[in-house]
Amino acid sequence: MPGNSFGNIFKITSWGESHGPAIGVVVEGCPHGMKLSVSDLQKELDRRRPGQSAISTQRAEDDKAEILSGVFEGKTTGMPISIIIKNKDADSSRYEKMKSLFRPGHADFAYQEKYGIRDYRGGGRSSGRETAARAAPGAIAKVLLAKSGIKIYAFAMRIGTVTADKINLDEIENNAVRCADKNAAKGMEKEILKAKEASDSIGGVVEIIVKGCPAGLGDPVFDKLDADLAKALVSIGAVKGIEFGSGFSSVNMNGSENNDEISSKGFLSNNSGGILGGISTGQDIVMRIAVKPTASIAKEQKTVDINNKNAKITVEGRHDPCIVPRIIPVAEAMVSLVIADKLLMQRCVRDD
Amino acid sequence: MPGNSFGNIFKITSWGESHGPAIGVVVEGCPHGMKLSVSDLQKELDRRRPGQSAISTQRAEDDKAEILSGVFEGKTTGMPISIIIKNKDADSSRYEKMKSLFRPGHADFAYQEKYGIRDYRGGGRSSGRETAARAAPGAIAKVLLAKSGIKIYAFAMRIGTVTADKINLDEIENNAVRCADKNAAKGMEKEILKAKEASDSIGGVVEIIVKGCPAGLGDPVFDKLDADLAKALVSIGAVKGIEFGSGFSSVNMNGSENNDEISSKGFLSNNSGGILGGISTGQDIVMRIAVKPTASIAKEQKTVDINNKNAKITVEGRHDPCIVPRIIPVAEAMVSLVIADKLLMQRCVRDD
Amino acid sequence: MPGNSFGNIFKITSWGESHGPAIGVVVEGCPHGMKLSVSDLQKELDRRRPGQSAISTQRAEDDKAEILSGVFEGKTTGMPISIIIKNKDADSSRYEKMKSLFRPGHADFAYQEKYGIRDYRGGGRSSGRETAARAAPGAIAKVLLAKSGIKIYAFAMRIGTVTADKINLDEIENNAVRCADKNAAKGMEKEILKAKEASDSIGGVVEIIVKGCPAGLGDPVFDKLDADLAKALVSIGAVKGIEFGSGFSSVNMNGSENNDEISSKGFLSNNSGGILGGISTGQDIVMRIAVKPTASIAKEQKTVDINNKNAKITVEGRHDPCIVPRIIPVAEAMVSLVIADKLLMQRCVRDD
Amino acid sequence: MPGNSFGNIFKITSWGESHGPAIGVVVEGCPHGMKLSVSDLQKELDRRRPGQSAISTQRAEDDKAEILSGVFEGKTTGMPISIIIKNKDADSSRYEKMKSLFRPGHADFAYQEKYGIRDYRGGGRSSGRETAARAAPGAIAKVLLAKSGIKIYAFAMRIGTVTADKINLDEIENNAVRCADKNAAKGMEKEILKAKEASDSIGGVVEIIVKGCPAGLGDPVFDKLDADLAKALVSIGAVKGIEFGSGFSSVNMNGSENNDEISSKGFLSNNSGGILGGISTGQDIVMRIAVKPTASIAKEQKTVDINNKNAKITVEGRHDPCIVPRIIPVAEAMVSLVIADKLLMQRCVRDD
Repeated sequence: MPGNSFGNIFKITSWGESHGPAIGVVVEGCPHGMKLSVSDLQKELDRRRPGQSAISTQRAEDDKAEILSGVFEGKTTGMPISIIIKNKDADSSRYEKMKSLFRPGHADFAYQEKYGIRDYRGGGRSSGRETAARAAPGAIAKVLLAKSGIKIYAFAMRIGTVTADKINLDEIENNAVRCADKNAAKGMEKEILKAKEASDSIGGVVEIIVKGCPAGLGDPVFDKLDADLAKALVSIGAVKGIEFGSGFSSVNMNGSENNDEISSKGFLSNNSGGILGGISTGQDIVMRIAVKPTASIAKEQKTVDINNKNAKITVEGRHDPCIVPRIIPVAEAMVSLVIADKLLMQRCVRDD
Repeated sequence: MPGNSFGNIFKITSWGESHGPAIGVVVEGCPHGMKLSVSDLQKELDRRRPGQSAISTQRAEDDKAEILSGVFEGKTTGMPISIIIKNKDADSSRYEKMKSLFRPGHADFAYQEKYGIRDYRGGGRSSGRETAARAAPGAIAKVLLAKSGIKIYAFAMRIGTVTADKINLDEIENNAVRCADKNAAKGMEKEILKAKEASDSIGGVVEIIVKGCPAGLGDPVFDKLDADLAKALVSIGAVKGIEFGSGFSSVNMNGSENNDEISSKGFLSNNSGGILGGISTGQDIVMRIAVKPTASIAKEQKTVDINNKNAKITVEGRHDPCIVPRIIPVAEAMVSLVIADKLLMQRCVRDD
Repeated sequence: MPGNSFGNIFKITSWGESHGPAIGVVVEGCPHGMKLSVSDLQKELDRRRPGQSAISTQRAEDDKAEILSGVFEGKTTGMPISIIIKNKDADSSRYEKMKSLFRPGHADFAYQEKYGIRDYRGGGRSSGRETAARAAPGAIAKVLLAKSGIKIYAFAMRIGTVTADKINLDEIENNAVRCADKNAAKGMEKEILKAKEASDSIGGVVEIIVKGCPAGLGDPVFDKLDADLAKALVSIGAVKGIEFGSGFSSVNMNGSENNDEISSKGFLSNNSGGILGGISTGQDIVMRIAVKPTASIAKEQKTVDINNKNAKITVEGRHDPCIVPRIIPVAEAMVSLVIADKLLMQRCVRDD
Repeated sequence: MPGNSFGNIFKITSWGESHGPAIGVVVEGCPHGMKLSVSDLQKELDRRRPGQSAISTQRAEDDKAEILSGVFEGKTTGMPISIIIKNKDADSSRYEKMKSLFRPGHADFAYQEKYGIRDYRGGGRSSGRETAARAAPGAIAKVLLAKSGIKIYAFAMRIGTVTADKINLDEIENNAVRCADKNAAKGMEKEILKAKEASDSIGGVVEIIVKGCPAGLGDPVFDKLDADLAKALVSIGAVKGIEFGSGFSSVNMNGSENNDEISSKGFLSNNSGGILGGISTGQDIVMRIAVKPTASIAKEQKTVDINNKNAKITVEGRHDPCIVPRIIPVAEAMVSLVIADKLLMQRCVRDD
């Protein structure tokens, strides 16, 4: 309840600050006897890792995960899986001068108000670095889901002014921005570099698709599948909105257009995004999240210091001019965690 | 965990089906010694109640709440508050013919897949009627919040093609659609009546504003204020999306535009929607939800029956051609529940 | 978390005061499609009901349960099951004079300290009447467990100075004290009547046995089966202790005596009480609870009033001189709830 | 819910196996701004540590705790506190031969039944080593409680046939068995050494007293203070029973004897153990736990192997012939965690 756990049966508890000795996560509820190795985790951590290309931060973390418990002779034992990722390239010196300044668009002010104390180095716990402790358990959830034929895809639907048009899910990992449209990808990269040169940043929209999800997942009336997905995704820093299926554009339609009619061969459309009444229908689950422009920019901005005196700030440090490409594996991780939890929950209530 | 509870400290547990004898809710964690009467609840139930005007369903529920526990001599005792609302005008006969047909856009199919059994009368538990058991505890949360000077507003920002322009929060309760712009309200009403005549339905966008919320509410990294609000609001049937502050339109801005600069007199803008790092900043909290066009329409649609045979369906019954006006008090209730819970949670961790 | 819910998957939320209009409970997580009727509940409520014999209180509640949701055409639907039991014979008048006096051995003082307000009528929520809202959901759990061949027995092992000797579980319901030894039962009845005549009360020990419980239930390291059973049973008013298997008498043995050796035909003894490492072993689960003498006695006792002035009190009202016979169905109910919850939990984690 | 978390607001999540690389725990909900250093933890870990004297196991763990997050410049930040304790002297070789044998009195059989896989080395997660991850967070809770003037004492009340008589809480740490009676301590030591020589083991009773606990802690009707204490303590391996105040011996009294009368100067006795109706009364909280004789003994015992074939086993390894002295700091830790959690919970609901 203090906010560092997520999930009920497949449950994670996360810890760690950006510039502390390490970050980590404890994963509970993973079924026993499942094959799992550290390379399963590393694959996803590498996708999220900084320094992958010219368009991302140059902080050089190798993000090597270690598994400290819960796996024995290559298999899960049903015991909690403790994962630790050491912080290596934590350069706190450049944060020294920002110790008493609140960075606009960041959590600095809010943390100070709430806790009265904060580890200001690199944003402390509010740093994007925290998401490595989401990617790792997400990787475990993915292994579990793969056994049930469930696969999660996420890609840049829009970055800056460029929108994907011809969607091909096989293209996602072929370009630095993780766009499912290879032509759009080029334009997106350009916009990111342009923003970087201007000491500024841009945002985007990520679409996430779950394929192979069985009907029946979700626990109305409050723990609906879409409600829990919304929480999971909005809990990621920089995410400012979410929509399912036709989402905000459903407002442009009449009920007769927006309703998905049904035939003996299945649904005739998917405006619902694969969820009705908070329960999966067996169609693809489709959602989109709005990712705001990165708050850290090298441009000078107005702010106040810890004594509420007016000041100017230029956020140095190593930042991503657009966080969309690196938020994608994190979004996949969060969706995987929700689906895994609902899948296990569903096993409890079925008639035996 | 089975999905009928919401909240941690200020916590509700809801029950009941549309055409059963009653619906109800148990409210736990309300501080003791607080003045509370059934009229506090009734006020909010009356706002949500069907049959208020020409633009809503004609089902004639008077929605009289009874308090069965937890209040003694006009004050809360700290014990669970049990609220019951009897179902009166439940006309199940017209559902008899839909017993084995799945209504497009409704939860019928999903419930059948998940549970293998369902109370088909009026949608059973998946009916919008369930939200009366949200409005009632929301009213209690509102009483609690009022003591701390916190007030929740919600209004129709858009219905069909009509968008509010000049926002005046005092106008909201002066028109049937609950729009904060009295001119736009007229256009909205017209669109609803037009849809009704066409045996069709329309959707809209609701904006919700929390005024007077102190800084410091929210529990990162998973139980962030925006994450929990997202879950709360998406758990309402018909809600297909949510955004905070500049939301999806933040994608149209650079970081330097979207960041809210700060001066010694406060923030210079509110693109964050009053939440940074998942914690309230003391600014107004601003969010918007997408409400899909009502699924129940009198137009003929394609569907299948319980044996997956192709069929046609015309959804009779008494429905709202646009659910926006009646979803507004429910959205306020859910937001109130989240803020009340976070407010109490904040009391635990403060330094004493 | 505010304390009125119990269980995780098979979960109950209880409400109601002794002299309010009703008490009740919401039961979540019961698998769908299970046959259930109000008579299943009534059977257990009748066992707990006051006024069954000369040795119990003469308060004449008929304790008729009503099911308000979650059951459709005789089967559970997977939706929350709301149960209400109206209070009928609530004679508050005799509590009027005790309004400002704290009854020794009762929760009056503690509630006043904690909440600053209390419904003093009949003890309010701290009344034993609350346990009717445990017996009812326990009855549902019993139906579920019976499907898996699990059966719960509880009986008076000791009342006053009389201890059961020849245990025959078939005798339990044949005598008013629910003792498994019919000869001891007579002595127990006598002791109760003697205490009653002396305007005093006595306590006892209840033994509870779970037969047919499969191996594997329990969730170490904190939600162990015995840990959750301990919580469940100690949460019943008047229970002051619990032990499993050889319990406190294990201290009289060496490890070589207390360890249960194993052969290919099973365990050679059951000092563990059927639980090792917090997990059921497949043997009978055996535990005993200490039930204190009823706090309400007609003898004059020293106390203070609400202003901390010395006073004398004689607790009138209709009370059980020994609560053991009526606590037995409640203990069974709590054990049933724990086992049902663990059984469903176990379904989640098994390898599929 | 998978069983490795304890507490609601002051909440811990534990992980690790006896012979893995490390064990650890994540502590959430500790109020921010509290002074905390690793030496606060170390003090309690050293009390629990093996190899302290001739009467305990010779496994030579130095049990050095490291704090990896949540503490900044000597103060808690409100962020999760991650604690890791490396396993050093894990000698797995001697467990090799027990790989396929179930040790009587241990969790081996039950884990195999439940999970189908187990880390057999040193008992894996079911090892007493797990309790180091209870002592560490318990130490944090103690720091928090000390600020409110609350202090926890635990001592050997009985070991083997020797019972403490003259209780002096200042004596506890002056002898190897942690008995509050220095004369009895000598007899207890002798009995332990005698059992050791006989390749056998003995058990005992631990009494725990909470001094300075304010009235009002506990959350009826299920999360009562005594109910949560019972769960906390029974969740410790080897604990087979618990009682509060007069406990099982309340059965020897009439109500008029067992009830604690009240005067304007306070309660006239403490048979309730400081808890009425599940809420602390302000008196000392008093409870006792039954600790079974250590299951690991060097005497030959009958058992079966993993294929259910009859076998003999002699449990080698380094074990405590009586676990009472080392369980004492663990019991204190669990009680501290419960009281800390209830104390924070109480802050939420009080009238502001």
